[in-house]
Amino acid sequence: MGEFDLIRQFFQRPVRRAALGVGDDCALLAPAPGMQLAVSSDMLVEGRHFFADVDPAALGHKALAVNLSDLAACGARPLAFTLALALPRADPAWLQAFAGGLLALADAHGCELVGGDTTAGPLNICITVFGEVPPGRALLRSGAQVGDDIWVSGTLGDARLALEALRGRARLPAAALAAARQRLERPTPRVALGQALQGVATSTIDVSDGLLGDLGHILAASRVGARLDASVATELIAICAGGSSAGGHFDLEIDVETRRQCALAGGDDYELAFTAPAGLAAEVRAAARQADAPVTRIGRIEAEPGLRLVDAAGQALPVQHYASFDHFA
Amino acid sequence: MGEFDLIRQFFQRPVRRAALGVGDDCALLAPAPGMQLAVSSDMLVEGRHFFADVDPAALGHKALAVNLSDLAACGARPLAFTLALALPRADPAWLQAFAGGLLALADAHGCELVGGDTTAGPLNICITVFGEVPPGRALLRSGAQVGDDIWVSGTLGDARLALEALRGRARLPAAALAAARQRLERPTPRVALGQALQGVATSTIDVSDGLLGDLGHILAASRVGARLDASVATELIAICAGGSSAGGHFDLEIDVETRRQCALAGGDDYELAFTAPAGLAAEVRAAARQADAPVTRIGRIEAEPGLRLVDAAGQALPVQHYASFDHFA
Repeated sequence: MGEFDLIRQFFQRPVRRAALGVGDDCALLAPAPGMQLAVSSDMLVEGRHFFADVDPAALGHKALAVNLSDLAACGARPLAFTLALALPRADPAWLQAFAGGLLALADAHGCELVGGDTTAGPLNICITVFGEVPPGRALLRSGAQVGDDIWVSGTLGDARLALEALRGRARLPAAALAAARQRLERPTPRVALGQALQGVATSTIDVSDGLLGDLGHILAASRVGARLDASVATELIAICAGGSSAGGHFDLEIDVETRRQCALAGGDDYELAFTAPAGLAAEVRAAARQADAPVTRIGRIEAEPGLRLVDAAGQALPVQHYASFDHFA
Repeated sequence: MGEFDLIRQFFQRPVRRAALGVGDDCALLAPAPGMQLAVSSDMLVEGRHFFADVDPAALGHKALAVNLSDLAACGARPLAFTLALALPRADPAWLQAFAGGLLALADAHGCELVGGDTTAGPLNICITVFGEVPPGRALLRSGAQVGDDIWVSGTLGDARLALEALRGRARLPAAALAAARQRLERPTPRVALGQALQGVATSTIDVSDGLLGDLGHILAASRVGARLDASVATELIAICAGGSSAGGHFDLEIDVETRRQCALAGGDDYELAFTAPAGLAAEVRAAARQADAPVTRIGRIEAEPGLRLVDAAGQALPVQHYASFDHFA
């Protein structure tokens, strides 16, 4: 199969909103007058971001989901994306499934595939996504204020628990693994929540590398510190806390240290961590209801630099022990 | 070196025009009111688009140049780009040189690096570039009309000749190889010419995969055919035709078949091939002068579908013999 046939067969569709889509030297977007354009790129590499034998439909979903999660963290409404794809070979069955997973999530968010590139090479997926946000309304990392509450959406750590189980480092019953794996392979970008938090959250980030590390970016950008209740965050592992996104209940015996590691440093959660004034807690909960996204208050912004982590008894825990995943560390 | 240190040290600079640059979940662009946004992505893979031992400064230049060339083919003015980079290791000397070549070309075109991604993995460079163009003024592939002249900018085939020499399939004197290699490794995107051709050219494409193949995209999109003078195009190999971009003269004995192959099907030229009404030849030449880009008339658009290639004596040449490079063929 040739490069151009491949694009035509699997990725070329009529555009609805863009002025020009796949098939010319450039795509043409017509941003709504006065809106700012939010842009983010993420690159996924086999063996680092996904296993070689991953379900291609799940991979297509995840490749776009991690980019939509960046738009969510910015409070932007998704518009369009480009896809650059390096493939060891052009396998029609694989491409069909990959495109299916990718475009289903794209359609669910009204986010059009407008262009890209394909080449032979080690499997690599690079997506650049575009969204729009009214000027001055984008959620940044730099706005956290002393006294703000720290919130996180959804659940934390299940994706990492699945990864540890798939690597043979943790044991999970089959049903629990299936539920956790769903979180690892088909994350839900919190796009509606991001938009609902415009004007409410003072700072936002998506949890991709692990809660503590990502929260650290907010603290650095905002020049503040924080106190975090590790026991509350650790309870956010859905499958350990007596529930899963599918509603199942699993009686798991996982030690508190593993649960803390997964919840605090696991990564691949694609939830939103954000800060908001303590007086706007009702507005935060209203935004969460509107976006159908559960939120939990896990700490407080403080003037003293650095992150202080305490357990349920108020005892300090070693923060550096739960450091974030770094691709070159 | 950690991922975030790497970004800070080599790629993070204050933005001038963008509302927000490197370092948050998204970059924020503020498009000029009423302008359309042209978007293009290109992915470069080691062993396919460049040799493993390529000069990293040249690689940085080329990675952005091929993307700027897509903006040129659209007639768009460069604004910003994102860079996603998979690296086998974080080598500071390599990164310094790569960033130097990349950012020098970016600065020359006022095109800001606003965001991206870095990860460990087989070397892969994915750039997405953004430009602006007034509504209705973008140069597309689909506007060629019967009777239009076919033009090409600059020189053709030198990059491919360098590639053949580097692969050991052709022999060039050292000075000629150096000149040809410059064309292969440091192509000049025709950004000013693309903008000058707004309202003059009826269709445009950049020559990345080879003149005949790329011209074929114009013919298909415009539903027309063409007659091309192969002898004129073949003379466009600068280093064979008695000149190089550096002004050197080389007495080369390269057979006409190799010259034709390189000029007509070589690829990696990053010149513009375009069509314009025969009555606007003076305007084409004025645009070329304004953009300081030589242009040559190489053929004519015809109603009969398909491409007819003739030599200097008017004899038909086999078009399919000079087919384009296809990444999955």
